[in-house]
Amino acid sequence: MHALIFDLDGTLVDTVYAHVLAWQGALGEVGIAVEGFRLHRHVGSSGALIVRYAQRMAGRQLSAEQTETVHRRHSELFRQIAPRPRALPGAVQVFGVLRDSQIPCAIATASYRPLIDASLDAVGVGPDTVVVEGNKELRGKPEPDLFLASGKRLGVEAADCIVVGDAVWDHVAARRARMLSVGVLTGGYGEEELYHAGAFRVYGDISDLLHNLDELGIMI
Amino acid sequence: MHALIFDLDGTLVDTVYAHVLAWQGALGEVGIAVEGFRLHRHVGSSGALIVRYAQRMAGRQLSAEQTETVHRRHSELFRQIAPRPRALPGAVQVFGVLRDSQIPCAIATASYRPLIDASLDAVGVGPDTVVVEGNKELRGKPEPDLFLASGKRLGVEAADCIVVGDAVWDHVAARRARMLSVGVLTGGYGEEELYHAGAFRVYGDISDLLHNLDELGIMI
Repeated sequence: MHALIFDLDGTLVDTVYAHVLAWQGALGEVGIAVEGFRLHRHVGSSGALIVRYAQRMAGRQLSAEQTETVHRRHSELFRQIAPRPRALPGAVQVFGVLRDSQIPCAIATASYRPLIDASLDAVGVGPDTVVVEGNKELRGKPEPDLFLASGKRLGVEAADCIVVGDAVWDHVAARRARMLSVGVLTGGYGEEELYHAGAFRVYGDISDLLHNLDELGIMI
Repeated sequence: MHALIFDLDGTLVDTVYAHVLAWQGALGEVGIAVEGFRLHRHVGSSGALIVRYAQRMAGRQLSAEQTETVHRRHSELFRQIAPRPRALPGAVQVFGVLRDSQIPCAIATASYRPLIDASLDAVGVGPDTVVVEGNKELRGKPEPDLFLASGKRLGVEAADCIVVGDAVWDHVAARRARMLSVGVLTGGYGEEELYHAGAFRVYGDISDLLHNLDELGIMI
């Protein structure tokens, strides 16, 4: 029995570009300028890691208070830029298909409620869907914690879990969790970047993935 | 004698992510929803091409009036999201270095004044720098028009011009103009995407390019 574990931002919902500008704006407000393409490549890792990376790039250390402000402003700006995140192609359908075929699945994201509420609404997942969020115990990607916790919640061995994600971070974390992973291009990474990060297969979006489940050994 | 022809958005200024959200917003207002990653891969082609592509993706035709509204709203939203575009690493310095070494250079962009005024200010180019904009006679990339016109304005043969750009569109247009081209990662494309599009070399940013001019046969 296989299980599918989905990343959220950039994989199920079209939110990566809003996150880039929200981080850039929040960091800019405390005087830390980081180029968009660099933040883009960091969306998908934990927020704490993004802020640490930005400080390193700028060669500046933020106080604990400033760090907290950056996180708060990122959330505010994100909700302002993307008040109603849109589901990506196939993202709504996939949960219906998997439910009908009794294939266990989960959503694993370093983000957290209430920031992800609108995104979960867009995908239309109900309370029966396992959602593993980042928190103090579960470290964000590239740590394997979220994926390992998802497998555990589903009762499926790591070797039988397949991670689906748009970012290099998903594939790096999946490899560390000893899980196969499948890339999607909806987060704006190049196909080869995802293969180089260890993706087993790369599809355009979740809709394409649905047409190619056979390649993953998932028969529906 | 070599000449360098630079793209503007994503190559010299950090504006690609703002353009993605500005196009997404402007198209959304007339009921055309296109995913961020798709618009990202189209920034750098002409605005007319982006709007045509969006209509094709949505399977809907806009009226001439609606099309005009989309272009106007894109400009407005872009200026709202990125009121003061920031120069990318090395973008300000490169023009000084090339001037000191008497290496001819130009900026070639499908965009146009006044939309690019703030970006040109950020890079600090003076009235002595050749800027070739998109207009009715010069078609935007992937047509080779802007690069061919740049070479002509500089009085340098196509075979001696090297295009520098962040987008697949730059490399495709450069090849059609029979010019070599160099990629930079500052627009958020993957390195392999740029090589596949025909880039001769790919650097992280203009600052990296400045450290590697020898590879291009430009001795300073």
